[in-house]
Amino acid sequence: MNIQRVASDLVATHRVASLAEKSLRVVEDYKGDLEVAVDPVGCKPGDFVITISTSAARHAAGDYRITTDLTIGGIIDHWSEERWRD
Amino acid sequence: MNIQRVASDLVATHRVASLAEKSLRVVEDYKGDLEVAVDPVGCKPGDFVITISTSAARHAAGDYRITTDLTIGGIIDHWSEERWRD
Amino acid sequence: MNIQRVASDLVATHRVASLAEKSLRVVEDYKGDLEVAVDPVGCKPGDFVITISTSAARHAAGDYRITTDLTIGGIIDHWSEERWRD
Amino acid sequence: MNIQRVASDLVATHRVASLAEKSLRVVEDYKGDLEVAVDPVGCKPGDFVITISTSAARHAAGDYRITTDLTIGGIIDHWSEERWRD
Amino acid sequence: MNIQRVASDLVATHRVASLAEKSLRVVEDYKGDLEVAVDPVGCKPGDFVITISTSAARHAAGDYRITTDLTIGGIIDHWSEERWRD
Repeated sequence: MNIQRVASDLVATHRVASLAEKSLRVVEDYKGDLEVAVDPVGCKPGDFVITISTSAARHAAGDYRITTDLTIGGIIDHWSEERWRD
Repeated sequence: MNIQRVASDLVATHRVASLAEKSLRVVEDYKGDLEVAVDPVGCKPGDFVITISTSAARHAAGDYRITTDLTIGGIIDHWSEERWRD
Repeated sequence: MNIQRVASDLVATHRVASLAEKSLRVVEDYKGDLEVAVDPVGCKPGDFVITISTSAARHAAGDYRITTDLTIGGIIDHWSEERWRD
Repeated sequence: MNIQRVASDLVATHRVASLAEKSLRVVEDYKGDLEVAVDPVGCKPGDFVITISTSAARHAAGDYRITTDLTIGGIIDHWSEERWRD
Repeated sequence: MNIQRVASDLVATHRVASLAEKSLRVVEDYKGDLEVAVDPVGCKPGDFVITISTSAARHAAGDYRITTDLTIGGIIDHWSEERWRD
């Protein structure tokens, strides 16, 4: 799993049915590279989160039929930009 | 999931049966690296899309027997080259 | 899926039974990095192909019991080195 | 599988139910890049470990319903920073 | 699949039960980056091998319950350092 920071929401009205109505977040890694994750946790921008990839992402979304390859698995209790980039 | 831009269509007449007649698009990331995705959404060149990889790609293609590892999951409503590369 | 070029055949006489007698090809990407793919299509060196990775590779090989993580999915009709590297 | 070193524990109180109460560790590779792994082995910071990714990570966690994509598979008996970085 | 060279054995006495007694090898790619693979073939250091990743690795290990993400699939008959790095 990776440590990423929630950057913003993402709106994709025209989507495949298998993504359902799931909330999508843009997440960034310590280098600033962006990815998109399903958020079953309820995060806000700035939260440091752990993200789950590959087939586990579908199960972590709460319904394995959700066709995501990246899902937010939790909010990290104690983390900071310094610890992240070091 | 990644944020990519549709670059062009891709024609591969001689293909494995498990890709069926699915529409293929060349998609590029913010660095210009190219990949090929199945498009169940109906995109046009220039659209910014979210792409789904690993086993979820097969399910997102609308039929899990389609042997793709990358499928377009939706068209992003508000995105721009500036936001992408920043 | 990725766009790769067939570089050569690969011979591995001593192999796991689950790769069976499948034809193996060395494929290269636009940077010259090499990988090995199962070829159910029948390619020749120089062909530009789309390659399928992860669990879809096994299904694309024509028999999901073939333990490959990369399979050639089709020959691209119109491609060139210029378009690839640009 | 990769060779990584346990850097620290990671606390994520607010997490998806599918990660259960599993112990999480921050692990680093030889370049210092960080990832998060489920630890069914019982490691301490400084241990060199092998980490298992993709769908095998769920099974290695001792319960395939645990939605992890990275799990510590064992502690390496003889390893050193010199051997790692060379 | 990738082309890697067997560098050495790896001993991990304290491991998850799902790796069983399987032989582990440190393998390196042409850049010298190290990974760990299950070896069902019986390789010796210096052998150039093809390695299988993702879910196919478990099946290639001879028992899909073995929780590996990388398995040696065969020994390449004709390969050399020159061909590898070129």
